[in-house]
Amino acid sequence: MSTLRAPNPDHQVPEGFQYFPPPLEPAEPGERRTPAEEARTLLAHSVVGTLGSLSEDGTPWASMVVFGTLADGAPVLYVSTLAEHGRNLERDQRGSLSVAAPVGDAPDPLQVGRVTLAGVWEKPTGEREEQAREAAYAAMPYGRTYAKLGDFSLWVLNVQRVRWVGGYGIMGSDDAAAYKTAEIDPTAPNAAHAIEHLNEDHADALLQIAQKLAGYPDATAATTTSIDRYGMDLSIDTPRGKAPARVGFAERATEADGLRMATVELAKRARQADA
Amino acid sequence: MSTLRAPNPDHQVPEGFQYFPPPLEPAEPGERRTPAEEARTLLAHSVVGTLGSLSEDGTPWASMVVFGTLADGAPVLYVSTLAEHGRNLERDQRGSLSVAAPVGDAPDPLQVGRVTLAGVWEKPTGEREEQAREAAYAAMPYGRTYAKLGDFSLWVLNVQRVRWVGGYGIMGSDDAAAYKTAEIDPTAPNAAHAIEHLNEDHADALLQIAQKLAGYPDATAATTTSIDRYGMDLSIDTPRGKAPARVGFAERATEADGLRMATVELAKRARQADA
Repeated sequence: MSTLRAPNPDHQVPEGFQYFPPPLEPAEPGERRTPAEEARTLLAHSVVGTLGSLSEDGTPWASMVVFGTLADGAPVLYVSTLAEHGRNLERDQRGSLSVAAPVGDAPDPLQVGRVTLAGVWEKPTGEREEQAREAAYAAMPYGRTYAKLGDFSLWVLNVQRVRWVGGYGIMGSDDAAAYKTAEIDPTAPNAAHAIEHLNEDHADALLQIAQKLAGYPDATAATTTSIDRYGMDLSIDTPRGKAPARVGFAERATEADGLRMATVELAKRARQADA
Repeated sequence: MSTLRAPNPDHQVPEGFQYFPPPLEPAEPGERRTPAEEARTLLAHSVVGTLGSLSEDGTPWASMVVFGTLADGAPVLYVSTLAEHGRNLERDQRGSLSVAAPVGDAPDPLQVGRVTLAGVWEKPTGEREEQAREAAYAAMPYGRTYAKLGDFSLWVLNVQRVRWVGGYGIMGSDDAAAYKTAEIDPTAPNAAHAIEHLNEDHADALLQIAQKLAGYPDATAATTTSIDRYGMDLSIDTPRGKAPARVGFAERATEADGLRMATVELAKRARQADA
C-alpha cells in the first residue's frame, strides 16, 4: 500500500487537511541519502533513461535513451543524427537526463525514486573520449556496431544540477560538486532482497520497530517499503489509518552486505526498548 | 537475442557494411501499425512517462510523470507547482511526453517501442476538464487527495506531432489528425501471452513460417519477438547469422482474441507452401 508522506510546507494545504496519522511519541528518523547520493546510486544501476533536448522549433523534446555512466557519475550517450534527439544535440547542447527506479508492480509509481540531471552535453576528447566510448559500449549491446557507421556521436553530460524526488513531499536538489563527490550506496544491490526478506520473515520485528522506535505505539502491523545504507522506510498500520515513517540505523552501512547487521541491530534495539 | 533491423538509407553506411543476412527469396512483409497507431496503443496501456518541459533558464527538463489519457488519445497531467515541471508548465506550455513499452528483461532496451508526443499543454475547461479530471484520478492513486490541495493543476496535451521508434532503423512520424483518428490495437493486451505461447509450444510452425513465408529457406530456428493485429516479427537463425523478418497476417485482427486465428492461418499457409 502506498501512503502520503510528511506534509510539505510548500503545499497550499487547506485548514484541517491531514495526510496521515502523526506519530504519538517523538522519534528519531536518522539520516537519509542526499539527493546527490540518490542520483549517483540510481545511475549506477540503470542504463535506460529519458533525454530532454531542444527541438528545432523550441519544443522541449523528451525521448528514451540508453546511457552509460563515467566514474565521476557523468552520463554518456552514443546517438545517431538519424534520431531527432541526436540532431537536437548537434544544434543545442543544453539538456537533461531523467532516470527512474523501475516501477515494476509498485502500487503507486509516484512513490518510486527518480532524478533529473541538468547541464550541458559535450563531445568528449582525449582520455575522456575513450572512457566514454567504453561506458557506451558497456550499456549498448550494439554499441561497437554503431562505431562503424558515420552518424553516431558520443556525448557526456556536464552535470550542473541534480533534482531528486523520492515520493510524496520527499525531494531535494544538489549542485555539480555534490554530485561528483557523492558516494554510490554500496548496499543498493541488496536492498530489494532485504525488503522481501524482512517483510516475509520478520513481521514481528518490524512491528516492534514501528512501536518502539518510529513513534507509533499503536501500530498493529508494519512493512518496510525501502531500505538503504542509512535506515529504512516503514508503512505502518494503526487504528488511526496507515502512516509512513523513517527509522535510522545506529551506523550507516559501509559494505554491500551491511544491511543484515544494521537491521539486526535495529530489531535488538526495539526489543530492548520493549523490556 | 536482439538483432539489427533493415539498413536505413539515412545512415552513413560505409561500403561493405552489413547488418544481417538478407532474405534469399522474395517475401511479403505485410502491413505494420502506423506511428499513430503505435502511439495510441502504447498510451492506452501506460500511465508512466517522461515530460519534456522548459526550465526557467531554457534547459529542456525531462522528468517522470504519471498521466491519464482521454478518449481522443490526449494525455492528461495533474501536477503541483511544488514540482519543477509544474512550475515550468505555468511559465511555458510547449512540451512533450515520452512513453516507452516496459523494458523488462529485453536483451536490448533499444529494441523496445517508444513514442514522443509533442505539442502544447492546455488547461482544460468545461466538459473536457471533467473528463481530464476523471482520467487523472484513474491513473493516480492519490489523485482525489491532490484535489484538496491548492497547488495542483490539470493539463491536457494538444498533440501536434507524433514520433515513434520501434527498434533499429524502424521509426516514423504522424501528425495530429492521424493521431486523433488512429485505432488502438485491440490485440495488444494479448500480445505478450501469444509470443510466449508461440515460442514455447510452436517452434516448428515458426520455423516453417520463416522458411516458407519470410524468405529464409535456410532458417534453422525462429522465434517471434513481437506480434500485433497486422502480423509478427521474427528473429531467425540461419547458417549466415541471425536475421530479423516481418510476416503479415492474411487479414488484420479486429478483436482482442484475434491473434490465435491469425497465427493459425499463417502456420497453415506455411505448411501448404511446404507441400
